[in-house]
Amino acid sequence: MLFEVRSQNWEQRVRNSFAAQKFMDHLGARLTHVSPGAVDIEMELKGELTQQHGFFHAGATSSVADSAAGFAALTLFADGFGVLTSEYKINLLNPARQQTLIARGRVIKPGRTLTIAKADVYGLGDAEQVHVATGLFTLMSVEGVKD
Amino acid sequence: MLFEVRSQNWEQRVRNSFAAQKFMDHLGARLTHVSPGAVDIEMELKGELTQQHGFFHAGATSSVADSAAGFAALTLFADGFGVLTSEYKINLLNPARQQTLIARGRVIKPGRTLTIAKADVYGLGDAEQVHVATGLFTLMSVEGVKD
Amino acid sequence: MLFEVRSQNWEQRVRNSFAAQKFMDHLGARLTHVSPGAVDIEMELKGELTQQHGFFHAGATSSVADSAAGFAALTLFADGFGVLTSEYKINLLNPARQQTLIARGRVIKPGRTLTIAKADVYGLGDAEQVHVATGLFTLMSVEGVKD
Amino acid sequence: MLFEVRSQNWEQRVRNSFAAQKFMDHLGARLTHVSPGAVDIEMELKGELTQQHGFFHAGATSSVADSAAGFAALTLFADGFGVLTSEYKINLLNPARQQTLIARGRVIKPGRTLTIAKADVYGLGDAEQVHVATGLFTLMSVEGVKD
Repeated sequence: MLFEVRSQNWEQRVRNSFAAQKFMDHLGARLTHVSPGAVDIEMELKGELTQQHGFFHAGATSSVADSAAGFAALTLFADGFGVLTSEYKINLLNPARQQTLIARGRVIKPGRTLTIAKADVYGLGDAEQVHVATGLFTLMSVEGVKD
Repeated sequence: MLFEVRSQNWEQRVRNSFAAQKFMDHLGARLTHVSPGAVDIEMELKGELTQQHGFFHAGATSSVADSAAGFAALTLFADGFGVLTSEYKINLLNPARQQTLIARGRVIKPGRTLTIAKADVYGLGDAEQVHVATGLFTLMSVEGVKD
Repeated sequence: MLFEVRSQNWEQRVRNSFAAQKFMDHLGARLTHVSPGAVDIEMELKGELTQQHGFFHAGATSSVADSAAGFAALTLFADGFGVLTSEYKINLLNPARQQTLIARGRVIKPGRTLTIAKADVYGLGDAEQVHVATGLFTLMSVEGVKD
Repeated sequence: MLFEVRSQNWEQRVRNSFAAQKFMDHLGARLTHVSPGAVDIEMELKGELTQQHGFFHAGATSSVADSAAGFAALTLFADGFGVLTSEYKINLLNPARQQTLIARGRVIKPGRTLTIAKADVYGLGDAEQVHVATGLFTLMSVEGVKD
């Protein structure tokens, strides 16, 4: 799908906003792709991100999915509008125990107030790519919130 | 609601499993209440848990909600069964910028295979208690997974 | 929870809007309670509402839950604003095979643009009340839409 | 995606089960495509399916989405297993006021106990195709339930 951007500065704004999300740094997450309506975020398996069985905690998986969806929405916002997650739903499809997780956020429907996006998370191992999670996200554009 | 426990060891198992979730430690989360079908988890606002506006990242908020719901389910499992999150949905109701978040996980319907739980997250400040998030969770009991 | 109404006409507006939902009539659904932030809708088991096992179809159950949540939100809207469902999530907890279903919609958080509500559906039989479904709903207030 | 069927009889079983869902008949819904992991259902705009603004009621839209997802799952079940919806989440993306709705159910991840599917609903008008809704569904296979 092709989306119209409403800011000349959309890419830099997303990169700055990602850099300002200290929680992403705390997870060791990296922004690896940004285009209009699309953002990818990657994260490596480390002990501090695991639940009791040694897999990525569902919360860690969801966190990069949420950020990927939220920044995908932000690429399409006009200047002067920030992004907040209103709600989301995520299905954990397979154990997330691969070395690298990649969350692909993609806008489904842009809007002035609400933007709907999906995020799919894949686990990348030596010889496999596993579909770890899929989610739907409602993002809200908030005027006067700096992003 | 009163729930029947199926393990003599239910409380210790939950406490051990929480302690084994390194991600909870990485968030600075603490287990503050455990009873049959009910678990509370608390977490303090620190820079490393924030999004770009200085609030708790939705992912951090969701992570404690998910663990509270998951461990609430685990209190009711028989020995030899572990817990995995199958899916969840969460609504972020208000900005999470209070000093302390408390996630209250409560079982709605226990089951042999699937347990449905809710989690409500409140932000506790000096003079206020704010309803920050509410979510619904499907937890799966998996035989042979150690918890 | 006590909610402030923003219209003198809130109850009549909800009753008129319900009467205008032809789909509710097609389901045989009745509005049985209206108060600020709260609406109940009831429906009887008939063959035409069933899925292949003779239970209420999840779609029929969800439809009354959605309307109960939506009208609960509408009780709190100012004049000149209509209600649309933005999204929802529902868990089907038990087979819905009782004679009567009652969907209880309750506002969790009112808002100028988005209102979050829950709906719980119970099946009422001769000697039992079964929790059939629970859901979370995001309702949008739309200016200039007649309700 | 290519899926393995576990029944020789999968197509007939889905057609019979759809025919046994009286609620689908009540909505005037038709089964228009069946293949392994994929089912389409169509429905025409009639007054009895509308909400107060004359659009398809979100409940009607969700009902065909739910059935499309559920029958998509059923195509992959072994003989002797029936399908129940465990939970779903749906985003209503655009007003559903076109003449025909088509719900496309597609399996994302098959499983012995839980199958995850999505459904996208499109409104088909004279000169347009509008993405009306998108949802994620968890379907449960239940042994001994006839389908």
